This record gives sequence, structure tokens and C-alpha cells, in this order.
Amino acid sequence: MVTTVRAVVCLSLWLVVCQVRGSYIPPKMNRTIYNLLQHYKIPSRERFNGKPVFSRDPLAGKMEAKRVFMGGVLETYEKLIGQMLKQLPTPTPQTAGSNELPGSAAIADGGEVGAGEDVRTQLSYILKKVQELRKHRYQEQEKLLQELRDLKHIQMDNLVVQSKALWELPWLYEEASSLYEIKMERRKRRRRRRQARRVKTRPSA
Amino acid sequence: MVTTVRAVVCLSLWLVVCQVRGSYIPPKMNRTIYNLLQHYKIPSRERFNGKPVFSRDPLAGKMEAKRVFMGGVLETYEKLIGQMLKQLPTPTPQTAGSNELPGSAAIADGGEVGAGEDVRTQLSYILKKVQELRKHRYQEQEKLLQELRDLKHIQMDNLVVQSKALWELPWLYEEASSLYEIKMERRKRRRRRRQARRVKTRPSA
Repeated sequence: MVTTVRAVVCLSLWLVVCQVRGSYIPPKMNRTIYNLLQHYKIPSRERFNGKPVFSRDPLAGKMEAKRVFMGGVLETYEKLIGQMLKQLPTPTPQTAGSNELPGSAAIADGGEVGAGEDVRTQLSYILKKVQELRKHRYQEQEKLLQELRDLKHIQMDNLVVQSKALWELPWLYEEASSLYEIKMERRKRRRRRRQARRVKTRPSA
Repeated sequence: MVTTVRAVVCLSLWLVVCQVRGSYIPPKMNRTIYNLLQHYKIPSRERFNGKPVFSRDPLAGKMEAKRVFMGGVLETYEKLIGQMLKQLPTPTPQTAGSNELPGSAAIADGGEVGAGEDVRTQLSYILKKVQELRKHRYQEQEKLLQELRDLKHIQMDNLVVQSKALWELPWLYEEASSLYEIKMERRKRRRRRRQARRVKTRPSA
């Protein structure tokens, strides 16, 4: 009983915080996630065990690195929600229509997600929101992630690949070294600028 | 015969270009790669078929994205050279010593790599150079690549993971949206600064 009350309080608090903070999240998306959490129930001790699914460490890094990681997170959400949809029981003929991606009058943007609406429709709506964000705002990062994935498929035991890779190494090694140098040079320049600004703003004796 | 001559000319030209351009590559590394290319020979039509092993596209992107990709390239080189070492015939007892990573007098830095020196020692030297660059200058990127790899191991069919991921979604969705907004805001600010500079430098009528 205590656990349930605590979970309800936490969920309500979370919704309030999201509403206040979440200027980018449509209220309907928040409500849909809340509804889904009623279906995907787990004990609070498991939810708050200090081990989030997605690490926050990369989000303390450089802006572009954060974006690359976030591209990976959105991609993972797409797969995860796809898996959650797969695990749902096959819809009965009466509810077969709910298998389609939302967009219908039932959950048109800004509309209300009714309590009786099935999990499949709600999950599909969340999937659509994640897909839209990734497609419209994370295209560059998606390309980079694809290039990184392609590296995994290089045929390491092939003589032609080995020889060509050796041939390409001097240029790439040079580039990798110079990228680091550029970074250090920029860092130095920023430090110098900061120092210059400090000297300027210091009141003269 | 024509192919061989063309290959030799190309190799020599490449070495000259590397020497002139390659301020970050030790000359010994260049020579070692050249020697190894004698062992890993492939026809010129295969080498110059316009399909490099490593794509250059990500290197036209943002600085941090380039570094992340380069971290992946260096990692791939480590695996590839590891594979090339594995494919070599087992050393005979007389040459067993050359199995160790270099550092010995034979190829001490700045020394000469003799023509008779075996492929294993040369490959090990190149591997060491790549490892050093990655370890000392690509640690941040390595961390991010590890975080991206960890995303692949998320247990998608586990209810606890699904529920926790749903719970984490509002914060991450918000963060992903705001990262994009910050990027656009920075772009606008840069454009405004450029315009202001142009106005300043324009001669007054």
C-alpha cells in the first residue's frame, strides 16, 4: 500500500515537474507516457535503484558529442518501443484499426488520450514523436552513427582491405594527430581571450 | 610490367607527399608502412578503385563529430592490425622474440627498419603507434564510443528496462529537443556576428 502511494506521489510529482520544465514536450505526450506507466508497472525499488537505462555521463561532454549520443539514444528508443509493440498480444478484429500509427481523430495532436485507449495506440504515438524528433533534428548525427556502424563491417581478414587500409593509414594518422592539435590550439586561444577579458575588466590601480 | 612500374611510382610519390605533408608522422612510421605494402601487395586497379576502406565523409563535418569518427577509425585499425598479426604464420623459435611488441633496440624510435626485419615486428610497431595516439589523444572519444556500444546491449524485452526507459523519456526528449534549439541559437548568433563584422568593415559611403 505504502509503495503504491509512493509511486502515485512520484508519478504526479514527475508530471508536474515535466509540465513546468518540459516546454518542448507536448502535454499529450506527457499524459500518454503517464498512462503507459500504469501498464508497464514495476516496483519503486526497481525504478529508483540508481541505475538508469540511459547513462547521463555523455551529456556532460561537448555539445556535438552530446548530440551524437542523443542520436544513439533516440535510435535505441525507436528499437525499444518497436520491441514493446511486438510483445503486445495480437489485436482482435474489433481493435485491429489501432495497429496503425496514430494520426486519426482519436489522438490527433492536442487531443485527449482516453483511459480506455489501448497500449498499442499510445506506444505508436510515442514512437511517432521520437521518430519525428530524430528525423527532423538528428539527421547529421544519424549519418555519423551509420558511418561508425559501417566500421564494424570492414572485412578484417581480406588482403585487399588490409593493404588498402595500410595505404590509407598515413593520411588518417596525420588527420587524427592534427585534429588533436587544432583542439589544443583552440583551447589555448580561448584561455588567452578569457585572460585578456579579465585584464580589461579589472579596475585600474 | 606497366602495372608494377605504376605501383612503384605511386608508392614513391605517396612517400614524398607524406614526408612533405606529414609533420605528425614519424619518418620511420612512413617507411615501415611502405615496407609492409611490399608484403601486402594488391593490383593497382584494386587499390585505386575509388572505394577507400575508411569513408572521408564524416571528416567534412563538425570538429567534435570528426574526432568521434576518428576515434572509431583508430579503434578499427587496432582490430585490423591485430587480425593481420593473427594471420601471420607462427614464428619459428629463432624469431620468437619478434612476437613481442617493439621497443627493442632493433626498431627503437628513430632507428632504421631493415629490409630483412619481419612483418610481425613492423606490424607491431604500427599497432603501437596507433594505440599510443588513441590512448593519449582520443580518450574522451573512446568513452563516448563505449557509451554508444552500451546502448546496443540494453535488454529490450525486459519489462523493468521498458518501464524505466519510459520513465526516463520525458527528460531525454526534452534534452534532445533543447540541444537542437541551442545549436540553432548558436548558428543565429554566429550569423549576426558575421553580419555585424561585415557592416563594420564596409567603407562608409
